[in-house]
Amino acid sequence: MTLRIAIDAMGGDNFPSPNIKAALELVNEESIEIVLVGKKDLLKKNLPDSFPESISIVHAPEMVDMNESPTAVFRKKKEASINVAMNLMFNGRVDAVVSAGNTGAAMASATFTLGRLQGITRPAIPILIPGIHGRTVMIDAGANVDCKPNHLLEFAVMGKYYAKLIMGKEDPTIALLNIGEEESKGDNLTVSAYRLLEGNLEGFIGNVEGHQIITGEQDVVVCDGFIGNVLLKFIEGIVSGLVGMFFDRQNERDNEILKQISYKFEYDETGGAPLLGVNGVVIISHGKSNSKAIKNAVLLAKQLIEHDINRRISMEMEKMVI
Amino acid sequence: MTLRIAIDAMGGDNFPSPNIKAALELVNEESIEIVLVGKKDLLKKNLPDSFPESISIVHAPEMVDMNESPTAVFRKKKEASINVAMNLMFNGRVDAVVSAGNTGAAMASATFTLGRLQGITRPAIPILIPGIHGRTVMIDAGANVDCKPNHLLEFAVMGKYYAKLIMGKEDPTIALLNIGEEESKGDNLTVSAYRLLEGNLEGFIGNVEGHQIITGEQDVVVCDGFIGNVLLKFIEGIVSGLVGMFFDRQNERDNEILKQISYKFEYDETGGAPLLGVNGVVIISHGKSNSKAIKNAVLLAKQLIEHDINRRISMEMEKMVI
Repeated sequence: MTLRIAIDAMGGDNFPSPNIKAALELVNEESIEIVLVGKKDLLKKNLPDSFPESISIVHAPEMVDMNESPTAVFRKKKEASINVAMNLMFNGRVDAVVSAGNTGAAMASATFTLGRLQGITRPAIPILIPGIHGRTVMIDAGANVDCKPNHLLEFAVMGKYYAKLIMGKEDPTIALLNIGEEESKGDNLTVSAYRLLEGNLEGFIGNVEGHQIITGEQDVVVCDGFIGNVLLKFIEGIVSGLVGMFFDRQNERDNEILKQISYKFEYDETGGAPLLGVNGVVIISHGKSNSKAIKNAVLLAKQLIEHDINRRISMEMEKMVI
Repeated sequence: MTLRIAIDAMGGDNFPSPNIKAALELVNEESIEIVLVGKKDLLKKNLPDSFPESISIVHAPEMVDMNESPTAVFRKKKEASINVAMNLMFNGRVDAVVSAGNTGAAMASATFTLGRLQGITRPAIPILIPGIHGRTVMIDAGANVDCKPNHLLEFAVMGKYYAKLIMGKEDPTIALLNIGEEESKGDNLTVSAYRLLEGNLEGFIGNVEGHQIITGEQDVVVCDGFIGNVLLKFIEGIVSGLVGMFFDRQNERDNEILKQISYKFEYDETGGAPLLGVNGVVIISHGKSNSKAIKNAVLLAKQLIEHDINRRISMEMEKMVI
């Protein structure tokens, strides 16, 4: 069966160009159909006069600003591309949605339109952090604040299947981000979450501290979305800070290291992060995404669908004793 | 008046040597008296046969392990060097204590022995994070978890006077670490803390996100000690991760950059971080501290005393409307 994936063509800082370019390349290389959602005129103007049949356009006349309130976008702009795209998925007309637009709006639209996956109360975002022993899935990277212990258990299960199905880790190890390794360490949230994870989660290896996100051997690190978001952005800050403080752009060796750092830390390769725990497949891409990033986001969506990650997560949640 | 500063001579991974070396250099260069607290025999064996009069020894027979429970150390080991040192301060026999021993034990001993500063309910640790525009004070770096909004206000005031008196910022700018810049963003803690800081704190400039710790121009960033501790350790992880992943120790240019990074991020220069908010002056140094770090920690203590930071903090707290 050919997959149909919707791209929010009005999403991203440089819309619609990276979205259209990605669509054209994708249908050329993969047995995939792309639905571009956005202003029809604009999209037609940016597509070649004759474009492949496997690309279609669904008109969405309303525009969303990057800083607009997510719930306002959902409630008042039913014809915005992100909302139209989510409705296509809700109605079974596409298998996944990729958007580089307003992140909050995409999360709100996905959660309200698609609803939550069976067993999940808080959808969450896993991201990949490069480390000494390979990449670690950090979840949640910012979809939730004020989490309860059972939310952290949900994140852990979602992160586990992300590591298992998408990163190919057979028996993923899952750790809880904390301020000490001992079970008794932490704040109210992590002390309770520790017990819940220990009692319910195969692969749970205990607490890890901040440095172990980079130096540790765990496959998944679980945390509240507040701290996940701070860490995600802190990485951006420290990478650009290192560049600004220590490297000389005139120096060949410096440029080589910078290129490697960018390669590992940039979004192009992963393309984006899924919003796991909604009743559908949604990839949130960075506003700065180029066509390569959008293309990889679509391929990530394809993997999530093919591995049926949602069903696996729901099945595991059914087994939990909370 | 000559200052008398106690060094926990049994503290640190390589005790007592860095502590003794620091003491000898300090009394040679500064008009300062050092009280070495620890096992008399061991200290005498490690001191030269004749040592300056401005160094004295106070005997403390009990040993503390780096992983021992902080409250147990306080309750059951009254003769441990850290507890003996804090008692010297409580009784006015020294003006400050420097310890590279068990951090938790030092914090517990300081809080229980000295009590809290007028107006402060939660002592906190400020640390310096290098950034594009200079160093930022991040407070709290790990003394507290499960903070309330008024605790964050206390941290903000302590951070402000640290930036003002120790870093020489005339009118420090203080920001709240959050997941968005708008006032409405954040979790329950930060949303409430925002209002409290805005209503009470001169120099408050609003929220900053994770990357701005490095790229922003604020002088102080305020956060819960859980996230502060994770960030502090994450920096260690990312610095060693960058070294492991991107640099070639055989390459001259790589080594040069590594040296710069270590210089900016290592503890030697700052020597340690104060535990602000207790009724006394306490510097917590890293277990790995060398004699230079201990020496700088003593000099930091001297600065805190000379600038009368505790009185300034208490005076400011009196003005608050909480």
